[in-house]
Amino acid sequence: MKRVLITGISGFAGSHLAESLVRKKKYEIYGTVFGDGYQPVGVPKHQLVKLNLIDREATLTLIKKIQPEWIFHLAALSSPAKSFFDPRETLTNNIEAQVNILDGALGDKKIERLLVIGSAEEYGQVTENDLPIDEKVNLNPVSPYAVSKIAQDFLGRQYFLSHQLPVIRVRPFNHTGERQAPLFVVPAFAKQIAEIEKSKTEATMKVGNLKSYRDFSDVKDMVEAYRLAMEQGKLGEVYNLGSGQAYQIERVLTELLLMSRVKIKVVTDPKRWQPSDVPKLVADSGKFKRLTGWQTTIPFSETLTRVLDYWRKQI
Amino acid sequence: MKRVLITGISGFAGSHLAESLVRKKKYEIYGTVFGDGYQPVGVPKHQLVKLNLIDREATLTLIKKIQPEWIFHLAALSSPAKSFFDPRETLTNNIEAQVNILDGALGDKKIERLLVIGSAEEYGQVTENDLPIDEKVNLNPVSPYAVSKIAQDFLGRQYFLSHQLPVIRVRPFNHTGERQAPLFVVPAFAKQIAEIEKSKTEATMKVGNLKSYRDFSDVKDMVEAYRLAMEQGKLGEVYNLGSGQAYQIERVLTELLLMSRVKIKVVTDPKRWQPSDVPKLVADSGKFKRLTGWQTTIPFSETLTRVLDYWRKQI
Repeated sequence: MKRVLITGISGFAGSHLAESLVRKKKYEIYGTVFGDGYQPVGVPKHQLVKLNLIDREATLTLIKKIQPEWIFHLAALSSPAKSFFDPRETLTNNIEAQVNILDGALGDKKIERLLVIGSAEEYGQVTENDLPIDEKVNLNPVSPYAVSKIAQDFLGRQYFLSHQLPVIRVRPFNHTGERQAPLFVVPAFAKQIAEIEKSKTEATMKVGNLKSYRDFSDVKDMVEAYRLAMEQGKLGEVYNLGSGQAYQIERVLTELLLMSRVKIKVVTDPKRWQPSDVPKLVADSGKFKRLTGWQTTIPFSETLTRVLDYWRKQI
Repeated sequence: MKRVLITGISGFAGSHLAESLVRKKKYEIYGTVFGDGYQPVGVPKHQLVKLNLIDREATLTLIKKIQPEWIFHLAALSSPAKSFFDPRETLTNNIEAQVNILDGALGDKKIERLLVIGSAEEYGQVTENDLPIDEKVNLNPVSPYAVSKIAQDFLGRQYFLSHQLPVIRVRPFNHTGERQAPLFVVPAFAKQIAEIEKSKTEATMKVGNLKSYRDFSDVKDMVEAYRLAMEQGKLGEVYNLGSGQAYQIERVLTELLLMSRVKIKVVTDPKRWQPSDVPKLVADSGKFKRLTGWQTTIPFSETLTRVLDYWRKQI
């Protein structure tokens, strides 16, 4: 049994990763939880620890106590849109937590792999020529969140270079699924549709920018990539993770509306636009696919159906 | 008269910049001071404000009150070596101060230019093929300080893209002169020589890694580049600043020892080695030179003489 620590285990990607590892029966899973979140099925409750990762002493003590062989550091403030309202909050939270995890891992004699999660948002406003985006494309961030991810990413690189800490870095493109917060686009749409279906009164839906293109994959495919990165990733290296297919947000909305049981009117809400946004992000994940054989396996329409059904049950 | 705010005005580059602007008689200069530092000649005392830039409210209030047209944001924890002892301190200080200055500038109706100071250390461990280093070379930081500068640099870019804030970014290579703290290599050598000359007893000098190559310029040339960047730099862009000439640290030491009035023995001190260091940094400043005509004007041997004379007076 490999001893694994997942930070943010009750969060979106964290809970999917935990449940996917539980099914493989090869991992002893510990997790950090912040606030009241979802409890992943199959992880014993006493292996979940309430912890704010910016509490440095508590974080270092926990890692020393658990002595994990793998650390998946998934906990982060993860909304580009929200980061505009308090840039300092997103920056300091994400960066301090990353430093504490890295310093904690330096004191962990059992550590074999530490996964640092960057983001496609690090590339930000790329030019058409740069598409699809490989790891050499220049970074051009357009949100404080994106800058916080650049700092996390390069901290991972620096601790590898300075201390030979066995860090693997990934830059996931958009991924969605059950339990993603409705401040992200797919659950935001799905939740509103589920509400409208239920109430049968107000049949108007508010949307932001529909013109952008994003590379969506299913969270279940993404967390499998995280596991493969730990097994086969080269130390210090960075890997883009995405399907390689771009969907316009407008098409995502259309597909979801086709699944709706009622007729819905769509209006644009200026409050749902960010000060700056990225027109198109598509991954070239060739470096990772050649190394590991990873492929996305779940068609996006299937993911959308699952997310809508999830929100129908929540509402 | 242009109204100028210099953060870190009592620091090394800050004080040289202030005194150089005073001599041009075209600037009304305000500055922030942290702790007790050098007071730049010619700047009225009531225009110097004691302030810790991580105090967000105080920083925003100050900028609102002064309404500077130019902000040179020079204040930072600036030692790569020191950043290893408390990575979080250097990261959070430099990044929080940068966010506060950027948010302050967003509320400054008079703002025309804001200078964000990165560092050659952002490039870090480059390959021989990348030398001399232009702005397109991949970043490969090897100290927490370097990561903090990457974050500052990209925050400047992000505020330009998101809010059209008139940010100019520079990545200065090594520069030295009077008042640089003796934890940097040139004043570290000069101070020890001055001490040995004075005491006439202990004639042994402790040194760290002598094999690295660095691109040194005089701080007086560097602060002139900062002023030119404000006058002529393109908004949002980044410019490397350096002489284009690499000096091995060993040669710097030899030149200084030749100026010494006593014979000195040199011993290597392992405590003066960083966990990771950069073997060679040489600037390609072509982008900035073609735009502004800037050139370094002060021969390095002259700078070394001045620094040694400065420390002879201090000891």
